Amino acid sequence: MNQRFTPPPPVDLMARHAQRFAGAQRACRERSCWSPFPDMPAGYPDSAAAQAAGRAAFESHLGRAFVLDDGVARPAATVGDVQPGEEISPYTQQALRVSYAHREVDELFDAAERAMPAWSNAGIDARIGTLMEVVDVLYREHLFELTHAVMHTAGQSFNMAYAGSGVNALDRAIEALVYAEQAMRSVTPQAQWRRRFGSAEIALDKHYRLVPRGVAVCFTCASFPTWNAWPSMMASLATGNAVIVKPHPATVLPMAISVRAFRRVLAEHGFDPDLVTLALDTVAEPLGKVLVRHPKTAIVDFTGSVAFGQWVEQNAHPALAFTETAGCNTVVLESAHDLDAALRSLATTLCMFSAQMCTSPQNIYVPRDGVRTPSGTVPFDDVARRLAQAVAALTGDDKKAAMILATIQSPQTLSLLGQLQADGARRGEVLLAPRAYRHPEHPAARTSTPLMLKVDTSARDLYAGERFGPISFVIACADSRDALAQAASDVSRHGGLTAFLYSTDEDFIVRAQDAYARAGAQLTINLTGPMPLNFAAAYSDYHVTGLNPAGNASLTDLAFVAGRFRITQSRRPVDDAAAPNATPKKEETRHGHQ
Amino acid sequence: MNQRFTPPPPVDLMARHAQRFAGAQRACRERSCWSPFPDMPAGYPDSAAAQAAGRAAFESHLGRAFVLDDGVARPAATVGDVQPGEEISPYTQQALRVSYAHREVDELFDAAERAMPAWSNAGIDARIGTLMEVVDVLYREHLFELTHAVMHTAGQSFNMAYAGSGVNALDRAIEALVYAEQAMRSVTPQAQWRRRFGSAEIALDKHYRLVPRGVAVCFTCASFPTWNAWPSMMASLATGNAVIVKPHPATVLPMAISVRAFRRVLAEHGFDPDLVTLALDTVAEPLGKVLVRHPKTAIVDFTGSVAFGQWVEQNAHPALAFTETAGCNTVVLESAHDLDAALRSLATTLCMFSAQMCTSPQNIYVPRDGVRTPSGTVPFDDVARRLAQAVAALTGDDKKAAMILATIQSPQTLSLLGQLQADGARRGEVLLAPRAYRHPEHPAARTSTPLMLKVDTSARDLYAGERFGPISFVIACADSRDALAQAASDVSRHGGLTAFLYSTDEDFIVRAQDAYARAGAQLTINLTGPMPLNFAAAYSDYHVTGLNPAGNASLTDLAFVAGRFRITQSRRPVDDAAAPNATPKKEETRHGHQ
Repeated sequence: MNQRFTPPPPVDLMARHAQRFAGAQRACRERSCWSPFPDMPAGYPDSAAAQAAGRAAFESHLGRAFVLDDGVARPAATVGDVQPGEEISPYTQQALRVSYAHREVDELFDAAERAMPAWSNAGIDARIGTLMEVVDVLYREHLFELTHAVMHTAGQSFNMAYAGSGVNALDRAIEALVYAEQAMRSVTPQAQWRRRFGSAEIALDKHYRLVPRGVAVCFTCASFPTWNAWPSMMASLATGNAVIVKPHPATVLPMAISVRAFRRVLAEHGFDPDLVTLALDTVAEPLGKVLVRHPKTAIVDFTGSVAFGQWVEQNAHPALAFTETAGCNTVVLESAHDLDAALRSLATTLCMFSAQMCTSPQNIYVPRDGVRTPSGTVPFDDVARRLAQAVAALTGDDKKAAMILATIQSPQTLSLLGQLQADGARRGEVLLAPRAYRHPEHPAARTSTPLMLKVDTSARDLYAGERFGPISFVIACADSRDALAQAASDVSRHGGLTAFLYSTDEDFIVRAQDAYARAGAQLTINLTGPMPLNFAAAYSDYHVTGLNPAGNASLTDLAFVAGRFRITQSRRPVDDAAAPNATPKKEETRHGHQ
Repeated sequence: MNQRFTPPPPVDLMARHAQRFAGAQRACRERSCWSPFPDMPAGYPDSAAAQAAGRAAFESHLGRAFVLDDGVARPAATVGDVQPGEEISPYTQQALRVSYAHREVDELFDAAERAMPAWSNAGIDARIGTLMEVVDVLYREHLFELTHAVMHTAGQSFNMAYAGSGVNALDRAIEALVYAEQAMRSVTPQAQWRRRFGSAEIALDKHYRLVPRGVAVCFTCASFPTWNAWPSMMASLATGNAVIVKPHPATVLPMAISVRAFRRVLAEHGFDPDLVTLALDTVAEPLGKVLVRHPKTAIVDFTGSVAFGQWVEQNAHPALAFTETAGCNTVVLESAHDLDAALRSLATTLCMFSAQMCTSPQNIYVPRDGVRTPSGTVPFDDVARRLAQAVAALTGDDKKAAMILATIQSPQTLSLLGQLQADGARRGEVLLAPRAYRHPEHPAARTSTPLMLKVDTSARDLYAGERFGPISFVIACADSRDALAQAASDVSRHGGLTAFLYSTDEDFIVRAQDAYARAGAQLTINLTGPMPLNFAAAYSDYHVTGLNPAGNASLTDLAFVAGRFRITQSRRPVDDAAAPNATPKKEETRHGHQ
């Protein structure tokens, strides 16, 4: 047992956050709309000042060594050499020149193992309370600092970085805590068991202990780091494990800020900050396989490419692997009450963050004969043209384009756009050609308007699989049945997280619900209006089903948390345990329950 | 969707079994002692007649083709050729000459997939109710038939086959249903979600569907088939999956009787009996790897050897694997209030079913200086000798031996006994030499009294790893600290399910609790008297921790069930869903919730 730290001070963090946690529990139970946080930056308390302070905090990191334990009472014994980061802002295309301390991999695992026993023994309430405090500290002290860090690494817009990578990610973090608590509470900490064996009665005192599985490694992605990482970290930590965070080398800063906040709160409340550490690598020398195969790795959370995600799933054993990779998100456009409203909603979603979200649609299946509407059937070519026009309308003006498209995270995406434009022109028709737009505030930003291609199903090789970036295909199908079959097949074969359907035919809707449920994509039907089609609400929308190659883990179900801890027990006769020199109280505290 | 079967008739099986299920839920919550079944054969209703009928039912199978669908309203379309079984009774050493219908593997998977949609769509209550009915039918109609089938394949005693492979296994089956229900109920079937986006309010109806992961393959072992199989089958079926049961070729009959009962109850209540099928193989041509690697395998439950269990864990991907293999169960004898009582309990557990249980102890660690007692320290050699005498006392008389030792399931165990007796004589001392005893009712039975060896830690290669059968080692250690360290190291390295400690030193007890919690063995402290030390109570004792090589699955925690189903959703605007031609009610039923 780790004796390095004194027991946590008597600050009851669970009581401090009880109301918020209860609200989250109710929302998870009802899957209703709820958040303790304002959904837009303007709603943040004293917003202008907070935004300015956040920006200044972000800028203070630039060109400097990031001090992970700034403000941590007991910094890590071994800090290691500082290594330069590889982060380049998609807004300025300039290096951030932040450097990060490097710690050897074995040292990170050893530190994590040292940190776990006291954390595990502290009990459910102490852990959940401390992690709710982390959520609160991230919200109160770091939200706009993170917003700018996400903008200048992932390339998101200010609003999306605030909402999607900020408050919504915090909500998903709380949601993970709710399910972790639910799974842990289903184990009673102690029991008395009495049974007759022949003429004798045996009475046993039984104690059940929640044992963390071990060290978790959390891989975070370049374009949306916090949204998956925070819930994964919370799920592992709540159940008593330590976490080593391995960010994509292009997007380190948001995770470094996060890790620092976790460490500071943990240390302030008497826990070893090495429960959360940062492992850094470079594109040239990736650490991923070393971390997954490390003998002390017990849990892997991975968000990133399909290829490495599948390698993780196959090679993590004996560690548990939780993955979210990517997929072919599909649209089926069968019929519509208001086709223009549907096309506007689709266009918005095709543009949002230049379709660099794992929930962005890519393959739009339309019957060759057209789409039925109250005013008659609109021919396929017209539907394709009008959808392209709707996208063009959203991106024609630089200011509007900047709001919705933001930037292109990786230069590779620009290459892919060029290649697919050429292929598409040869194999089908370019509905909309991409072009760089000029960002009003960041004229050097890496940008592109969307590429839209019109093809038929003979060009399946072009669109079968995720084409990361603002790339979509309007695909002519034999009929509505074929459209649904093609779309569902994409999901089953290549993975898919979301799916979108427009139909006025209730029988067709039921068939689509069945088909997408089997394929495992979360379906949105006939949605129009201001809500982004691919908006995934914390506490309400399950993210990833685990039924297709887009990932095996769902945010958030019990399966996401229940395996992260194990249950051990000890039992002894009641009389024996009650012996004068027995110490049941002491033992009970050590059992990690409260 | 499968249209082969009409919807289930309106028999409310959940209501029929509501009281029993509620009792099990309460027991799981409190982990208290509970069972709806009498713990001894004499307590069974009209016991003598039931026992005679069960024996007759067993005997009616001998030398015949087993008709899997005897009594099933709609037998499987393809029955396949009959193949002779390889079962030999350990009591008579005669072949049972039961033959079983063979169905091709692909046919089994196709049949399972056809059967799943209607089962999945029937909803939680219909599934749990039907499976509770299966439990009841196994209890009321097949318990003594199964008792004899287990005796004449696994070789257990009549009482153990009744209790351990009968009612206790049924309790574990119900326990799995309780946790499956708990995990599924944590997902609300529907929600209404409202949020403002700018000036507009978006209101969505959301429906959540529980989707089975797919076809489960359940491997059952030679010596204790039902105890692990029934809970695994229940966990998979309750969450909507189909199960292919692959019994060890030496112990098919108990599983064939089980599968037949599942099929009959399923068919009687309107479900496709192919939800539960039997895959048969032979020792010469094993099917295991084919089944694990089949592209339609979604879940694997495995009980059996460490070697194949580890292969399953490494190769099951993308299927989920739940394993229970074997391990080195350890004893630490540090000090005792009543040494003779402790030695009697240990001796009983070393003899129980000739230590062919995954919970039987094997390695007994004793300080070289002896064991402290109220009347002074008993030297190591005396402790070893008195333990061997206690074992000899239990097995000296053939009638007593038959009751406790029963038979040796596999001839390989006799070879191992011979080899280890020779090795042990060379490397240490034979405390007790094994010999065949004459079973009073079955003079041809394959039997052996236990082999006990006295060694020191230089003979670690002899006892490091499971030595299956009535084989134990009394191991001299430097001191009590060394004894605990050696024992915990066995568990971590070679696996371990149970552990047993005798100590009057509370500080030592706390250290042992910590050490075994880390290693992941379930600890029993200072237990004496009539309860078998390794008795694992359903609803109360967690079986296997998943923290060491003895297996990754625990009976029963939420992790055992939560991943067997996934969650898909569809959402649409409230107004749209309320359109006159919308069919929310129909859809709701299809969602698999109730």
